[in-house]
Amino acid sequence: MRHIESKADEYVEDLRRFCQQPSVSAQGLGIEACANLLREMMEEAGISARVYPVENGNPVVLGEVCGGGKERGCIGFYNHYDVQPPEPLELWESPPFEAAVRDGKIYARGASDNKGSLIARIEAVKAVREVLGEVPINLKFMVEGEEEIGSPHLPNFVRKYAHLLKADGYVWEGDGVDEKDRPSVTLGAKGIIYVEFKVRGAGRDAHSSWAPLIPNPAWRLVWALSTIKGPDEKIKIPGWYDDVVEPSEIEENLLAEMPFEEEAKKREFGLKEFLGGLKGLEALKTLYFSTTSTICGLDAGYKGPGSKTVLPCEASAKMDFRLVERQRPEKLLRMLREYLNKKGFSDVEIIVHGAYEPAKTPPTDPFARYFIETVERVYGSKPVVVPTTAGSSPIYTIRNWMGIPVVSGGGVGYPQDKIHAPNENIRIKDYIRSIKFVATLITTYKPEKLRKTP
Amino acid sequence: MRHIESKADEYVEDLRRFCQQPSVSAQGLGIEACANLLREMMEEAGISARVYPVENGNPVVLGEVCGGGKERGCIGFYNHYDVQPPEPLELWESPPFEAAVRDGKIYARGASDNKGSLIARIEAVKAVREVLGEVPINLKFMVEGEEEIGSPHLPNFVRKYAHLLKADGYVWEGDGVDEKDRPSVTLGAKGIIYVEFKVRGAGRDAHSSWAPLIPNPAWRLVWALSTIKGPDEKIKIPGWYDDVVEPSEIEENLLAEMPFEEEAKKREFGLKEFLGGLKGLEALKTLYFSTTSTICGLDAGYKGPGSKTVLPCEASAKMDFRLVERQRPEKLLRMLREYLNKKGFSDVEIIVHGAYEPAKTPPTDPFARYFIETVERVYGSKPVVVPTTAGSSPIYTIRNWMGIPVVSGGGVGYPQDKIHAPNENIRIKDYIRSIKFVATLITTYKPEKLRKTP
Repeated sequence: MRHIESKADEYVEDLRRFCQQPSVSAQGLGIEACANLLREMMEEAGISARVYPVENGNPVVLGEVCGGGKERGCIGFYNHYDVQPPEPLELWESPPFEAAVRDGKIYARGASDNKGSLIARIEAVKAVREVLGEVPINLKFMVEGEEEIGSPHLPNFVRKYAHLLKADGYVWEGDGVDEKDRPSVTLGAKGIIYVEFKVRGAGRDAHSSWAPLIPNPAWRLVWALSTIKGPDEKIKIPGWYDDVVEPSEIEENLLAEMPFEEEAKKREFGLKEFLGGLKGLEALKTLYFSTTSTICGLDAGYKGPGSKTVLPCEASAKMDFRLVERQRPEKLLRMLREYLNKKGFSDVEIIVHGAYEPAKTPPTDPFARYFIETVERVYGSKPVVVPTTAGSSPIYTIRNWMGIPVVSGGGVGYPQDKIHAPNENIRIKDYIRSIKFVATLITTYKPEKLRKTP
Repeated sequence: MRHIESKADEYVEDLRRFCQQPSVSAQGLGIEACANLLREMMEEAGISARVYPVENGNPVVLGEVCGGGKERGCIGFYNHYDVQPPEPLELWESPPFEAAVRDGKIYARGASDNKGSLIARIEAVKAVREVLGEVPINLKFMVEGEEEIGSPHLPNFVRKYAHLLKADGYVWEGDGVDEKDRPSVTLGAKGIIYVEFKVRGAGRDAHSSWAPLIPNPAWRLVWALSTIKGPDEKIKIPGWYDDVVEPSEIEENLLAEMPFEEEAKKREFGLKEFLGGLKGLEALKTLYFSTTSTICGLDAGYKGPGSKTVLPCEASAKMDFRLVERQRPEKLLRMLREYLNKKGFSDVEIIVHGAYEPAKTPPTDPFARYFIETVERVYGSKPVVVPTTAGSSPIYTIRNWMGIPVVSGGGVGYPQDKIHAPNENIRIKDYIRSIKFVATLITTYKPEKLRKTP
C-alpha cells in the first residue's frame, strides 16, 4: 500500500494521458487511437492485451493475467474506454480532454465514467507485480468502446468469445463512495431500450401558411409520444408491467439501510420535491425498481432565436425506457411497435439504438459476499449494498447469459463527479484508494473458500 | 400609355438604382441609406416625402401628393423598402445587388419583393405629372423598412401617425400575374400568433436513470402540446372557434373560380395527398379560411447522432397559430394561457414573439370593386380575386384600426420571380405594365361614384 502511495504522481499522469485521448463513441471520435493506447498501457502494466476488431463497431480490448492453474481462481473485470460527448463545451471550466488537475481533482470527460476506475485496475496489477513479482490469481479484462452508445456489439462479442471470458465472478465498472465516504457495492442494473422516433412529412420544409394542407411531422410525433405516457407517469402500453418483479425482502432491507441524502439530492438538481412528491424508502423503491419512459431529446424545424414560420418536413425524439427484472427488451419493443400501429402511428419510424436486459446477482451469492467483505476491509466501513442501479449496463451478457455473478465497487466515483455533464471529475485520493482496493482484491482471493460457502 | 412605353429604359434604370442599394432588415444592412434614397426618388417624381425615424427600429418613409381638395379622393399605397437576406450568395448567377438585366428580366434581391412594385408606383406618379401636369387626386405613400422581419414597429407607427395616413382605400404590396398571365387581386390576410413554449425542469441536465424522481420538461411539453390539438387537427381550446366567420357565398364563389394546380402543388411538396385527403374547393376553403396551430420547431436535450441517456432540464417549442376573421390575438392568447393552466400546465411559459390580427375587405366594397375593374381594364382579363391569403400581413393596422378598405394587386410578381430565394427577378414587361396600371388607377378614380354605389 505504501508502494502505491509512493507512485501516486505516476498514476495520475497515466490517467491524464488516457483521458487526454478523446474516445466519444456517439461521435466516432478517437476510438481506434484510444483502444490502441489502452492495449499499450495494459501491456506496460504486465497484462497480455489484444485489440479485437468488431465489424461495424468499436474494438474490444481483452487482457489476461495468468496467475497459475484453475485452482487459483479467476476474477474478471469489465470496463469501457469510450466516453459521453463533451457538449456543451462552453460550460467546461477547462477543456474536456485537457484532463486538468485542480484542487486534488482531475477534470476530464470520462475521468469518472469510466477511465478512472479502468486505469486504477491496470495500475493495481502493475503495483502487485512490482511488489510481489506476480499476480497470485488469474485475471480477465474486457474493455469495450461502445458502452455510452448502448453496447450494441457487446452481446455478440460475448457470445462469440465466451470461451475467453470465463471467470468465477466479474467486477463491473466500479462505483465509488457517497457523501459520507461510504463505499458502495452494486449487484445489478436496470435494462434499457434506447430508441429514436422519426416522422417524415413533406419532401421539404414549407411555409407554415400551408399548414391546413400539409401534414406536420412535429405534431404527429407529439401525438404519438403522448400515447406512451401521460402526466400520471404511467406507461400506457398494455402489458408493459406484466413481467415486473417486486424487490425481495432482502433487497428492500438493503434499500432501507441505504443512506439517501434526499435534501442534498434535491438541492443538487434544483428541485423543491421529487416527481410525484415521493420521499424516503418509497422514492428509493421507485428509483431502483420501476420501469421508466424518458424523452432524452426532441428535434424539429426551427430552433434558433426569434421566430420562423416554417412547417418542418421531419421530426424526431430520442427516448429511453428503463427495464426491471424480468422485463425483456425484444418483447417490449414488439409491444411498443404494435401499440403505436394500433394507435394510428404506423408512420412513426422506430430506430433502435440499443437494448439491455436487466440483470441482478443476489446479495447472498458467495462471490458477492467476498467482494463486499473486501470493500469493507479496504475502505474501513460497511459498504452500502445497492441491489440494482437505476441506470443500465450490459452486465446481463455475463450475468444472464454466462451465469457468472457480477458485482461493481471499489471505483473512483463520488457524488460530485458530474458524469455525463460538463466538468466531470474525480478526486485523486479516490483514485489512489481504488488502486489499493483492486490490489487487495486480487491478492487475497481464495476461490476454495467460496466453494465451501453454502 | 405611349408616354410610359417611351420612357421604359429610364424606368428600368431607376429601379436598378434602387435595387443596387442593399436594405436587408434581418442584417441591419443599408437601411438608412435605402430610406434616404427612396425619399430622394419620391421627391424627384413629385411626391413630398419625409423619413420618419422609429425608435429602436427602421425608419418609415411617408409620401404625399396633393391633387386637390377632399372631394378629389385619396388613394394610399403601402410598400416596404427592406428585403430578405440574399444568402446563399453562391447560388446567384449575378450578384444580388448588381441588378443585372438579362433576357428582359431584372435580377436582384428585392426586385419582386417589394422594390419593383414600389418604384412602379413612383414612376406612375412621375408619368402622370409629365403628361397631365398634375395628379388629379390625393395620394399617400407609407413605406416601411421591417416587413421582412415581421413589421414589429408598424402597429405603433400607424397608431401614432393615423392622422397622416387617412385615405379612401389602400393598395398593399402588389401581387402580380399567374402562369397564364392572369392578374390577381388579394383582399385580405390571416392573422397570426407566434409563440414559444418553454418548460424548465431540474437546474441542470441529469442522467436519465433519475427519471423516476426528476420531472422531465420534454414530457411536460409533449403533454401540454397534445392538449392543444389532436390527430383530428381540431384545436381543443374551448372557444377557439367562437369568432370564426365562415366564408361568405361571394367568397366561396371566388375560391371556386380560382385556378388551383393541385397535382403540381402536391408534386412540389412531395405529397401523395393533402392533409385529410382534402381536394379541390374543400382544400382551398381549408387553406384560406381555417385557423391553424403549427409546431414550427421542437427543441430539447440531445439531438446529435446516436444516443445519449440524458434527462433534459429544458424543452421548448416554437408555434404559430393562424387566425381568421374575426379571431383576435389578445383574446386567444388569454384563452391559451388559461387553458394550459386549467389543464395543469401553468409551468409551461408562453413567450409571445409576434401577433397580427386577421383582416379582410369584402369583395363587394366599392373601393375593392373599382380596383378590380381597373385591373381588368389594364390587364385585359378578369383578375383572380383572392378573398384572403393563407399567410399573414400587417394590413389589419389600416383595415381594422382605421376602417379603410385594403386591396393588393397590379404589382410585378410572377410565378418564377423567386422571392426570398437566389436569383429573385421580375420581367421588365410586368414592371412597365404595373406602371401603366397605377397611372390608370390614379387618373380614373372618381370617389363620388364610389359613394353612390350601394
